Amino acid sequence: MTFLSGDGKMNYLLILLILGRILLLSAVSMLPPLLVSLIYGDGAHFSFIISAAALLVTGGVLVLLFLKHERSMRPREGFVTVALCWIAISLFGALPPFISGAIPNYIDALFEMTSGFTTTGATILQSIETLPESIVFWRGLTQWVGGMGVLLLTLAILPSDDRGIYNLMRAEATGPASERIVPRIRKTAAILYTIYLTLTLLMTVMLLSGGMNLFDALLHAFTTASTGGFSSRDLSVGAYQSAYIEYTVAAFLLLFSINYTLYFAVVTRRFAKIRKNTELKVFFGLIAVSTVLVSMDLIRSGVFDTIEETIRHSFFQVSSSGSSTAFFTTDYSMWPDFSRLILLCLTVVGGCAGSTAGGIKVIRAVMLGKSAFREIKKILHPRSVIAVHMNGQPVQDKTLTGVLHYFVIYVMIVAAGTLIIALIDQLGVDTSVTCVLSMISNTGPGFGVVGPSSNYSVFSVPSKLLLTLIMLVGRLEIFPILMLLIPSSWRKV
Amino acid sequence: MTFLSGDGKMNYLLILLILGRILLLSAVSMLPPLLVSLIYGDGAHFSFIISAAALLVTGGVLVLLFLKHERSMRPREGFVTVALCWIAISLFGALPPFISGAIPNYIDALFEMTSGFTTTGATILQSIETLPESIVFWRGLTQWVGGMGVLLLTLAILPSDDRGIYNLMRAEATGPASERIVPRIRKTAAILYTIYLTLTLLMTVMLLSGGMNLFDALLHAFTTASTGGFSSRDLSVGAYQSAYIEYTVAAFLLLFSINYTLYFAVVTRRFAKIRKNTELKVFFGLIAVSTVLVSMDLIRSGVFDTIEETIRHSFFQVSSSGSSTAFFTTDYSMWPDFSRLILLCLTVVGGCAGSTAGGIKVIRAVMLGKSAFREIKKILHPRSVIAVHMNGQPVQDKTLTGVLHYFVIYVMIVAAGTLIIALIDQLGVDTSVTCVLSMISNTGPGFGVVGPSSNYSVFSVPSKLLLTLIMLVGRLEIFPILMLLIPSSWRKV
Repeated sequence: MTFLSGDGKMNYLLILLILGRILLLSAVSMLPPLLVSLIYGDGAHFSFIISAAALLVTGGVLVLLFLKHERSMRPREGFVTVALCWIAISLFGALPPFISGAIPNYIDALFEMTSGFTTTGATILQSIETLPESIVFWRGLTQWVGGMGVLLLTLAILPSDDRGIYNLMRAEATGPASERIVPRIRKTAAILYTIYLTLTLLMTVMLLSGGMNLFDALLHAFTTASTGGFSSRDLSVGAYQSAYIEYTVAAFLLLFSINYTLYFAVVTRRFAKIRKNTELKVFFGLIAVSTVLVSMDLIRSGVFDTIEETIRHSFFQVSSSGSSTAFFTTDYSMWPDFSRLILLCLTVVGGCAGSTAGGIKVIRAVMLGKSAFREIKKILHPRSVIAVHMNGQPVQDKTLTGVLHYFVIYVMIVAAGTLIIALIDQLGVDTSVTCVLSMISNTGPGFGVVGPSSNYSVFSVPSKLLLTLIMLVGRLEIFPILMLLIPSSWRKV
Repeated sequence: MTFLSGDGKMNYLLILLILGRILLLSAVSMLPPLLVSLIYGDGAHFSFIISAAALLVTGGVLVLLFLKHERSMRPREGFVTVALCWIAISLFGALPPFISGAIPNYIDALFEMTSGFTTTGATILQSIETLPESIVFWRGLTQWVGGMGVLLLTLAILPSDDRGIYNLMRAEATGPASERIVPRIRKTAAILYTIYLTLTLLMTVMLLSGGMNLFDALLHAFTTASTGGFSSRDLSVGAYQSAYIEYTVAAFLLLFSINYTLYFAVVTRRFAKIRKNTELKVFFGLIAVSTVLVSMDLIRSGVFDTIEETIRHSFFQVSSSGSSTAFFTTDYSMWPDFSRLILLCLTVVGGCAGSTAGGIKVIRAVMLGKSAFREIKKILHPRSVIAVHMNGQPVQDKTLTGVLHYFVIYVMIVAAGTLIIALIDQLGVDTSVTCVLSMISNTGPGFGVVGPSSNYSVFSVPSKLLLTLIMLVGRLEIFPILMLLIPSSWRKV
């Protein structure tokens, strides 16, 4: 036995206790789609009742058995707990579409609902419009809950002591370092969810005033807020043929891709914090430059008839890819190479840390660039001491090294994933590479057979399972799933 | 004025002096093809005489003007000198094929000869077999000289004092850290060139005994030794229809892809150094595993009729890609996705440091992997202190950080290059990505329109110039060309 933090045996009982709590809360999340099912009379209500019962029983047993094991959580237990919880909710979340018969194959349902929780937005469905309303609603709701975080929701709602749960929050949050905006984590979680809910409701109202019905408005607000991109329409946002709706969705996608602590800064009137935010400036710079470049490329190739159409579709697709969302207004797989590569780059970089967006995050990309530039300067001037700055503050070398390693592991996972997919399913090199990039970025579409208006049903079962795992790797930013899979995290030191 | 090394004004006069010396030596390198031209009476002799005269005059003027400026060289002057020398020899090296009319367009000739010196092996020619013999010989000779290094050859031959020329050698050598095998750099250069020449002659003899004529044997020995891959035949090594020749070339490609200091260790009977070499084990492991995987993939897809044929072509293409060489025995662009992706991965990783092979080098890939694994362990056990080992020795953190940054800058250059090529020439996403990867790895072929049996003539002039630059970036391992291009290296601190 040792007293060093991070050492000693993994505390299995504590992990199971937290898992039980998450499952209980997930049962509650099945009430809204159950209500939808009853309202529309779509016949899927039993599937939600059975699934919720399964969650209540499993979660209840775990909590009752292990309640006395509550104690402080170490980093690796935090990682493993978060990984297990996300796998569990995906497995249970796949039950309603499977039981109701909406998705007759359980692996397909698992892919679809993991794509929901992780806010990827990739689908195996040929048509959304023939699904029961409650299943469509459930797809959207999983994205909304998964976007801000399942464990964060638990922290915000359920009573629990504060010891060590920072390790849980950290493992689920996006970006290299997660900030507590107030000292107590429960309060941080509550504030973040309040901001999230408020913006989602605001967006619902704006979509309603654009002529959408309540169901569609709520659903698109859910999947925009989470930058997920599940739609109720087969033609996605393009189905509404409304410039107002397209601009609204695109603008909110950007709003949901920035660090939510900045909204708290707005509420508390600390505007200097926003002005100094490097990531925010770079993100909006990238979006602006990309929109201009894509527009010019589309004009050169004569894809659209009018300038307004060109700019609107460019801005929409740039916002959608830049926020790692699966929405589309047009089949951009027909766009020229340069535009499609710009969209792919945006998807890889993704949104800002501390947002619901995917990708490696703008802050990491900026740190990689600044750190590389410093390395070049160091070669020129070997004895100089230069610090990398973000938000007007110097960044610790330890943080930079962490980001460099994150990037290396990211590239290795993408390479390994691509090779395995290409080995199992021979669907073309472009498909193999971009489906993995799209899954790990939690974006949805790629090139080849996984274009914006196509779907993932062509993959074999092993590929679907691997892609499902890669979605979780992407959403949880690699380490939780990695820790779960490597034996040395389970071993006593 | 300051006394800190690396600071102060760039010493332009010293750079021009070294450049002058390289040009004089390059003039001498035109004698062998001149001789070939006279022997075969192919009519191209005047082009070599004019080109050599141009080199002698330019080089002579530079040396005479700046001889009194000889002094110690700082790192950034080393980088800039090497970059300028390589650009200059490429510009002059393009003269013979241009003047002789073999390649009527100067930009094409520049692309072709930069592809020679950098040992890339990519070509803009439709057919090699219709070229004058002396031009074919010149293509091969540029690869041989470029493989081991133009400046290293100068150091080995020309008298010069030893002060600071380590910075020249370092800037041209491959891998994260270049070793002096003996204390004096001139002697190190001479030993390396002796090993190189000996192995090249050995290979020539082996090819002759396989039935090749002297011209072809010498040429293929040149372009195998340099892992360049220019051939005298349009069907490359496949043209000889000889299993013996294919196995010989493949085996020598591997021999030329390992660190040459290991041959010195053999000569000096220090076998422990070889046994402990991590990079060597990983390189041969990668080649063996890749050969097995590709063979199995080809058997599954029924590409060849016999097992021997399958294994031979797999081994040849794995050796060719693993050593970043452009040789081929069959049109492997028809192979299944998985095999092609394995070959692409091998090309990106490349051969060992201190060899003539391209790619990011096995040693860097191993360091990236080991460093990433240590980072994961550190997260599990935050207070542990773990060192990364290579060749049985701990690696300094500074070296690892350097390699991490190298990789990040590499990825950024590939991404930027791909976007620009896609913007200029719309030849498909697979072509844009893989032509850049192939150029920076100094390999030659890619996917799409730049497959093994096709050529680079389809690109526009701006693309050809960019690809030419990327070949130099790859051969000189990024920093020399980068230092030449960024303004801050020219500025006084």
